[in-house]
Amino acid sequence: MQPTRNVKPPVFNPVTGAVRALAMDAVQQANSGHPGAPMGMAEIAEVLWRRHLRHNPANPKWADRDRFVLSNGHGSMLIYALLHLTGYDLPIEELKRFRQLHSKTPGHPEYGYAPGVETTTGPLGQGITNAVGMALAEKILAAEFNRPGHDIVDHRTYVFLGDGCLMEGISHEACSLAGTWGLSKLVAFYDDNNISIDGHVDGWFTDDTPKRFEAYGWQVIRDVQGHDPAAIEAAIEQAKADTERPTLICCKTIIGAGAPNKQDSHDVHGAPLGAAEIAAARAHIGWNHPPFEIPADVYAAWDARTKGAALEAQWNAAFAAYRAAHPELAAEFERRMAGELPADWDAHVAAVLAQIVDKAETIATRKASQNSIEAYAPQLPELLGGSADLAGSNLTLWSGAKGVSKHSGGNYVYYGVREFGMAAIANGISLHGGLIPYTATFLMFSEYARNALRMAALMKLRQIFVFTHDSIGLGEDGPTHQPVEQTATLRLIPNMDVWRPCDTTESAVAWANAIERRDGPTAMCFSRQNLPFQARTSDQVAAIRKGGYVLSEAPANVNGGKPQAVILATGSEVALAVAAQKTLAEQGLAVRVVSMPSTNVFDRQDAAYKASVLPAGLPRVAVEAGSTDGWYKYVGLEGRVIGLDRFGESAPAGELFKYFGITAEAVVQAVKSVL
Amino acid sequence: MQPTRNVKPPVFNPVTGAVRALAMDAVQQANSGHPGAPMGMAEIAEVLWRRHLRHNPANPKWADRDRFVLSNGHGSMLIYALLHLTGYDLPIEELKRFRQLHSKTPGHPEYGYAPGVETTTGPLGQGITNAVGMALAEKILAAEFNRPGHDIVDHRTYVFLGDGCLMEGISHEACSLAGTWGLSKLVAFYDDNNISIDGHVDGWFTDDTPKRFEAYGWQVIRDVQGHDPAAIEAAIEQAKADTERPTLICCKTIIGAGAPNKQDSHDVHGAPLGAAEIAAARAHIGWNHPPFEIPADVYAAWDARTKGAALEAQWNAAFAAYRAAHPELAAEFERRMAGELPADWDAHVAAVLAQIVDKAETIATRKASQNSIEAYAPQLPELLGGSADLAGSNLTLWSGAKGVSKHSGGNYVYYGVREFGMAAIANGISLHGGLIPYTATFLMFSEYARNALRMAALMKLRQIFVFTHDSIGLGEDGPTHQPVEQTATLRLIPNMDVWRPCDTTESAVAWANAIERRDGPTAMCFSRQNLPFQARTSDQVAAIRKGGYVLSEAPANVNGGKPQAVILATGSEVALAVAAQKTLAEQGLAVRVVSMPSTNVFDRQDAAYKASVLPAGLPRVAVEAGSTDGWYKYVGLEGRVIGLDRFGESAPAGELFKYFGITAEAVVQAVKSVL
Repeated sequence: MQPTRNVKPPVFNPVTGAVRALAMDAVQQANSGHPGAPMGMAEIAEVLWRRHLRHNPANPKWADRDRFVLSNGHGSMLIYALLHLTGYDLPIEELKRFRQLHSKTPGHPEYGYAPGVETTTGPLGQGITNAVGMALAEKILAAEFNRPGHDIVDHRTYVFLGDGCLMEGISHEACSLAGTWGLSKLVAFYDDNNISIDGHVDGWFTDDTPKRFEAYGWQVIRDVQGHDPAAIEAAIEQAKADTERPTLICCKTIIGAGAPNKQDSHDVHGAPLGAAEIAAARAHIGWNHPPFEIPADVYAAWDARTKGAALEAQWNAAFAAYRAAHPELAAEFERRMAGELPADWDAHVAAVLAQIVDKAETIATRKASQNSIEAYAPQLPELLGGSADLAGSNLTLWSGAKGVSKHSGGNYVYYGVREFGMAAIANGISLHGGLIPYTATFLMFSEYARNALRMAALMKLRQIFVFTHDSIGLGEDGPTHQPVEQTATLRLIPNMDVWRPCDTTESAVAWANAIERRDGPTAMCFSRQNLPFQARTSDQVAAIRKGGYVLSEAPANVNGGKPQAVILATGSEVALAVAAQKTLAEQGLAVRVVSMPSTNVFDRQDAAYKASVLPAGLPRVAVEAGSTDGWYKYVGLEGRVIGLDRFGESAPAGELFKYFGITAEAVVQAVKSVL
Repeated sequence: MQPTRNVKPPVFNPVTGAVRALAMDAVQQANSGHPGAPMGMAEIAEVLWRRHLRHNPANPKWADRDRFVLSNGHGSMLIYALLHLTGYDLPIEELKRFRQLHSKTPGHPEYGYAPGVETTTGPLGQGITNAVGMALAEKILAAEFNRPGHDIVDHRTYVFLGDGCLMEGISHEACSLAGTWGLSKLVAFYDDNNISIDGHVDGWFTDDTPKRFEAYGWQVIRDVQGHDPAAIEAAIEQAKADTERPTLICCKTIIGAGAPNKQDSHDVHGAPLGAAEIAAARAHIGWNHPPFEIPADVYAAWDARTKGAALEAQWNAAFAAYRAAHPELAAEFERRMAGELPADWDAHVAAVLAQIVDKAETIATRKASQNSIEAYAPQLPELLGGSADLAGSNLTLWSGAKGVSKHSGGNYVYYGVREFGMAAIANGISLHGGLIPYTATFLMFSEYARNALRMAALMKLRQIFVFTHDSIGLGEDGPTHQPVEQTATLRLIPNMDVWRPCDTTESAVAWANAIERRDGPTAMCFSRQNLPFQARTSDQVAAIRKGGYVLSEAPANVNGGKPQAVILATGSEVALAVAAQKTLAEQGLAVRVVSMPSTNVFDRQDAAYKASVLPAGLPRVAVEAGSTDGWYKYVGLEGRVIGLDRFGESAPAGELFKYFGITAEAVVQAVKSVL
């Protein structure tokens, strides 16, 4: 240990011993994993989980539970040990199968696997950011639903994090906002052990972290001895007492504390201790039990089921009183937390679509998106909008939007220029429940948020990403801002539904789908520039939901209406396809136009439907102002793709389409070349 | 103006007037752009560019020039005005064609368009991060090349940045490192105008920025009146005097200062002022000249050519003295700054490859990558390695690696857990010249750095990205760490060469290619797990450089050696393809195996070569442990792709390949299904 750090080592006891033993034994059995953080944070975990955390192991979905996030997710055995010991449905057999296929105990905590895991963590910095989202959701829902004498939304969010999380840029974005919003029910424990994978952090992490967090407006409790329960207890009480600021508790700890020869070095960070060191640790911490055996009295000391049931019962009683006083609010709260849409939702969508078809407007799809929000949001108070400092460009504000601030709730979040933070905060909001977040930036800057989009898809979150300025149609801002490969790369994220609508109708359908989707996120790519309205029958309007459909069949007066080729298009290029179809018809060539606003959704349709849209043997041409590679899946080696595989340029949009050859004429030529 | 901010307005004069006029007139003429920042930073720019910046407009590539980075790149008219006025080859006609196709004045400053633009900026936060890389390069080169009495590397890096850059997470990563490294020649000017696109920043940006930067170990000069030349001058002198810390000069400014009715509001941020306001501004600032007309005396006041020529001549004389004293060092410095490889490079690569072929090792390609570094680095002192806290996992250290620190140069950078910062710092290093940076993280966390990779490709930088743990072969860490779509999405970045080598030989060729490539970056994806060596003829070894080649022709004893199908594979799946080929041969089916380590490079080959590798009409099967979509470009609608289009799981790697059906047996079945 570095004497200058002045860290008091733990006083070992069987209660914390159980955590240390489970961590080192499970990692050893799996022959991989991270024992260092669980062993180093055992005392912090013990004080928080046994004395403060309000949760009910029998009901991990209790609406008003405290949330706990292990942002240093590599220390997953810590949360598995805590969930097991406190009585969650996570039997010891699952801990024995740590990191094995189909266990509930994967290498990092995965949402949906073990009960009580509130979010998937591992990609550093995102856990604390999710937690900021959870705490924000609590604040917004409390403002909306609580009434005098009825604090039915009243819980805290606790986070463990390490040096890695604090080095990541996203921690800046999230913690800055947490301070601005005054999220006083957010309490983060910084596991200050001075070690990261490459060794002692002095060479690459010299921030004055307390000062940094004070600059964000947090309460910072410095120099807490992280192995001293009394010190931890006092810090938590101080955190709870602050009603204006989030709190960072800086805990000085020894990584791997309890492993007498390896502790306080990066050797203990991410590898099994080995049999010899485990034996030495057992002796050192006074734990004389075989692997995965916990004495009954230790289980009893950890068991949170009775206390948890009482806490939830208390809340249930309070909620019953709330229901009696405010029946409509109570019903609304239950609907919202269950993630159900209003009963008349389908009818409302149908009415909205009918109006849109009637209006037949030629507008930018970003404007069509705003109109969709305007149409749907009044029915959906759970919609929580936002933008990364582009509200006026993304067009995500609506007439009923009310900004969230330190001193009030609302339904719109000004995230500032923080794309990654925004997306991961929205993940936390979605995980919390009660709100459906939609967030927005330019499509290009989806790249800043990239891994948070993937995490939304991995966790199957109901999350809506609005990405505007979706191609070279952005124009003068130039190649740094002009998407080329972005739509294509979004489509490759498993479980991400990507839409690129061509007009007002497709935009409204995409929005409805995104709102209704309960098992994953949706990204929608909208144009900056105006796009013409496409006429459709009601069957065609219904078919939009299949992701791809025949928008315009070959004209009946050409080739007997029998298509000789198919043009596939999305978004702004659908109009080009339709224009090309017309030109080709004038030349006696019968071509079908397929609009494919969502390849992901189309791919999920049955083979018969897909073949009905894209009949085998018909030559195909795809057109999209972006990467061409993905389209060969639909057009084959003999097909043609009109697109863009190089960077854009700064110029007015109209010139760019011509310059890069994305024109109706190019589509005509391509069709002729495949016939 | 908000009186509480206590900002002193400018005293207008013709020198700063020229900047303001050019900015508002060019934006007006383009009918798009951002007049606010150029008008608000005119005094800062005037003091820096006229009194401090050491540059020679006649030679924008002078090795020891000061670097200037406009991190708030949307204010591009500021740098165009400065370059034009000080005498760079950027005539007024180019300013008139602001934001037009093929002008040198695109919407954001693009590297390679206007002389004197040191980096492409616009994606916020990356400019300051590039600047940190430039300052780091200066420090490292100074440590390597300077000798007592000969400070041939001795220049500063100046940055302008705004609120947006400071909100972005990457500013945390970069500025934390700048403090740790003690980059005292880095001077950043914070344009503190209290405005971002959504309006006054108070609702979303309440950081105590000076305190934050003090926490990073910077010298912070607070409360500088940004329109007062004397105050700016004093701050710059104070910045230069500090030899231990980078400096942040916090300048209180009025956005759009000079536009009497629109200044100090977001109306002036990103839209033309309009004819009426421009007329009012002309009167307000006392600028009576027509658009794009600058009086001779104003030109004279700005002209930096004489002074710049003298500065460079002075340095040339100093360099001549250095050459006399240290001829080898001087020659090496010139080689390095010219980006030339050593004369014996090709021979060295050939010798390395011969040894590798001889050894025929079965090792992980991440280890093969390390061996490549070990083989090449001793010849290439310009290689500057690094990792985002995964040095031991990425295997990017080598026997001669020496860590860079605050008090010493070196050839290896411990970036900490900062992937985005690392990649954008490396962009800055590459832009500076004299060094070839390679950086590393897990392939998954290429996502954190995504937009910096794109910027490297857009700027055509010589930059090498090492991404290890490239598939479900990563194993127990689970889906958050297991790449699925990452290799595929990297391939879609225009001008990014992506390699996924299958063994030691391909790894060494990929590395050689990456080092030699001068017009763009290379990303290499390496396995965690061991991969068998593949035997090759010397022709085959040479063919690796074509990106795809016949690794194993159909056996001569089956079907007369005439292939009936082709299997395409990359990386860890090449061995599966070879095994499948053998099984199929035993069943009387003749199959060719094509190894395709770089689809991007293969795509650049001529049609004849491509057809020789992938003959028309032969059924094709591709196998890669990742997204399948991109492979249809090579196998067509009738082909088959074995891959993974869903998230991974936490389990030992061997189990996962079986569970997800990425096996030789699956390849055999697929080939049979297409025959």
